[in-house]
Amino acid sequence: MVLDSTHDVKRRSWVESAGVSDGDFPIQNLPFGVFHRSGEDDRGGVAIGDSIVDLRALSATGLLTGRALDAARAASAPTLNGLLSLGTTAASALRAQLSTLLSVDASPEQRALSARCLVPMTGAELSLPVAVHGFTDYLCSLDHTMRMGRTTLPAAFKHLPIAYNGRPSSVRLSGEPVDRPWGQWTSEEEVRFGPETALDFELEVGAFVATGNELGRPIPIAAAGEQLYGLCLLNDWSARGIQSFESAPLGPFLGKSFSTSISPWIVTTAALAPFRVPSRRRETGDPPVPEHLDDPVDRESGAFDLTLEAFVVTPAMRAAAAAPARLTSTNFRDMYWTFAQMLAHHASNGCNLRPGDLLGSGTTSGPTDASRACLAEITRRGADPVNLPNGEQRRWLEDGDEVILRGRAMREGCVAIGFGECRAIVRPALDR
Amino acid sequence: MVLDSTHDVKRRSWVESAGVSDGDFPIQNLPFGVFHRSGEDDRGGVAIGDSIVDLRALSATGLLTGRALDAARAASAPTLNGLLSLGTTAASALRAQLSTLLSVDASPEQRALSARCLVPMTGAELSLPVAVHGFTDYLCSLDHTMRMGRTTLPAAFKHLPIAYNGRPSSVRLSGEPVDRPWGQWTSEEEVRFGPETALDFELEVGAFVATGNELGRPIPIAAAGEQLYGLCLLNDWSARGIQSFESAPLGPFLGKSFSTSISPWIVTTAALAPFRVPSRRRETGDPPVPEHLDDPVDRESGAFDLTLEAFVVTPAMRAAAAAPARLTSTNFRDMYWTFAQMLAHHASNGCNLRPGDLLGSGTTSGPTDASRACLAEITRRGADPVNLPNGEQRRWLEDGDEVILRGRAMREGCVAIGFGECRAIVRPALDR
Repeated sequence: MVLDSTHDVKRRSWVESAGVSDGDFPIQNLPFGVFHRSGEDDRGGVAIGDSIVDLRALSATGLLTGRALDAARAASAPTLNGLLSLGTTAASALRAQLSTLLSVDASPEQRALSARCLVPMTGAELSLPVAVHGFTDYLCSLDHTMRMGRTTLPAAFKHLPIAYNGRPSSVRLSGEPVDRPWGQWTSEEEVRFGPETALDFELEVGAFVATGNELGRPIPIAAAGEQLYGLCLLNDWSARGIQSFESAPLGPFLGKSFSTSISPWIVTTAALAPFRVPSRRRETGDPPVPEHLDDPVDRESGAFDLTLEAFVVTPAMRAAAAAPARLTSTNFRDMYWTFAQMLAHHASNGCNLRPGDLLGSGTTSGPTDASRACLAEITRRGADPVNLPNGEQRRWLEDGDEVILRGRAMREGCVAIGFGECRAIVRPALDR
Repeated sequence: MVLDSTHDVKRRSWVESAGVSDGDFPIQNLPFGVFHRSGEDDRGGVAIGDSIVDLRALSATGLLTGRALDAARAASAPTLNGLLSLGTTAASALRAQLSTLLSVDASPEQRALSARCLVPMTGAELSLPVAVHGFTDYLCSLDHTMRMGRTTLPAAFKHLPIAYNGRPSSVRLSGEPVDRPWGQWTSEEEVRFGPETALDFELEVGAFVATGNELGRPIPIAAAGEQLYGLCLLNDWSARGIQSFESAPLGPFLGKSFSTSISPWIVTTAALAPFRVPSRRRETGDPPVPEHLDDPVDRESGAFDLTLEAFVVTPAMRAAAAAPARLTSTNFRDMYWTFAQMLAHHASNGCNLRPGDLLGSGTTSGPTDASRACLAEITRRGADPVNLPNGEQRRWLEDGDEVILRGRAMREGCVAIGFGECRAIVRPALDR
């Protein structure tokens, strides 16, 4: 993870809103997303302060050159799959030129031309950054797995990052509501069909695959890092009653496939370089890391130091204009497996990954009570309701509840960068 | 399921090869696929005897009208997703006009113009008929589930068609070889990583979704039948060692995702109308069919009477030019769940399905020993090797073995129709 001038803490942007101290999008971030203005079509953009750089417009200014120009042209499409297929090197080239153009050191001409490509976020509608062709969800938190399993750890947990194929068609952008699903579950030994009562969120981190691999050709662990284009926040909505009943022996299906929410911006691994930390060390008695998932660089800097939080806003809180109530505060550095390991494992049997494929980390719970990252853990599967500041309680999510995920990379001596929110409101089950 | 002139047993085609008595593609079949000739691009076609009707060429002749013309134009694209998105009614309109044009009753002009659109199969290369955006694999055979589970049936089996999300990216066309996957499994209580030894096939039927549904809007069981565009043969290659080790608690992942093979032709549900039979009756003591998966038409005609077979050709058999050895002969009518029930269940939580989404039935084993539809059942997980006619034995698939699936709908008083083969050869694991 090379640090360069794009990470320079002294670099400032002429976009004033990018200088706000607790903002998500300083000039050190520059995440990619897809947006349109009313009457226009979707195209790629880069967040800076409270604005978006229109990459289609920027690629027509003549300001960009070489691979950065190629990248911006690829990002002019309605999805960023083409951009991701160019790989992380092209992304870094674009990042470097963008950082220069947006900095206070830009020439007057650069600044004037770039400024014409800025769109205020308030006037833009965001879309899914990629067409999600593949979505895989993992189980990378030891603490989550221990709390959910109640008894022993799955046999494979410490040998490989356990995963299942998710449903790509129902991945949705932050802001889109979630309909409470119907399904089958057991109650008093009877099987019933109706709206799920045990509706839960899962606070996860998502990773987008860059170029991917051909079928039959694995991605060695040493090459996995450069296949990680960037990260987002991901809410793996879970219907616990449906999931419990259906999951033996083939795993979760309808308990998950009704919706998955992601935050709109792809925060690049380039931007996150200052926040890389060693991967979690194995404890005495743990099996060694399998050779094909072990790599010195990954050991040294495979994890991300990201503060992750989940909040809820109930209808009563909304009516009272109360602040969102925090349910979880955790850190992504505590996971048992790294994203590079997850990706290398995924391709280890020859399975092909494609540009824009989405990997979900699994619930990011840490060891402390405060870091339990879903209600099933927080309320011990509904047994102990959580108390909200306004006196309300929750065992599971209720209609009208909004879940908000936030994520932020912070470190002494670095400019903090954020992910933007991943939020969605629970709508009542549809009548049938 | 309405029978019409396209099913008329007396109807004959002027394409002579369509009249061969044991052929797969008589005029009563007319399945859809995608092909190209050398130097041309992919487009939709319809199999008739040993030829293919080029639908792009046919749509330019002026012979087609109305919805049939719309369908043929949609089928001129390199994938049939657009055709499927028009629904089964448009498919039937095209089927009806094609049947007329290809019949001996066609006018001389119709025949002359249509003949110019015929391409010999020997000069065509077939491609995947659709871009597979979603792939879901089920567990619909009671007999397979009983034999694989060894102890008791999963709690949900008789309440819902158990399923998991498969990996769409590695769905491949018949003829493409399968690389023996690497993976982790346990041997003498040690976890190892290397080429899978317990490589297996699973004889399945695939179904393609027609128009699909919007997120949040279920597909009622009464509407599920018309969402089934057509069927194919599907080999759900399985790495049993990998699968056993990884599957708790999230289900199969790398044990399946290295490859899934399908036959090239979509045999439409319209063509299969004469072969519909009542769905399997529940036994005394079975729970009732859940209301949202119960429908009188499905009860009456939800199943398909399809003879399904699996064969193997070993390298020694190939060298001796021996006939393929049959491993399995089963019938799809014996499944516990119908495709309409699988589809209605899939969408019952609001999950959206898209045109061309692929549903795999799960291993189609029946009650008899002859109908065990994977090696894990036939050899009792490798314990009892199967004897081949040339004296060889197999516990699992070996390098160079080719698996061939065949399927055929036959019924007294009907012209039999076939699926074409689904075949693939096992290549040795790649060196690492």
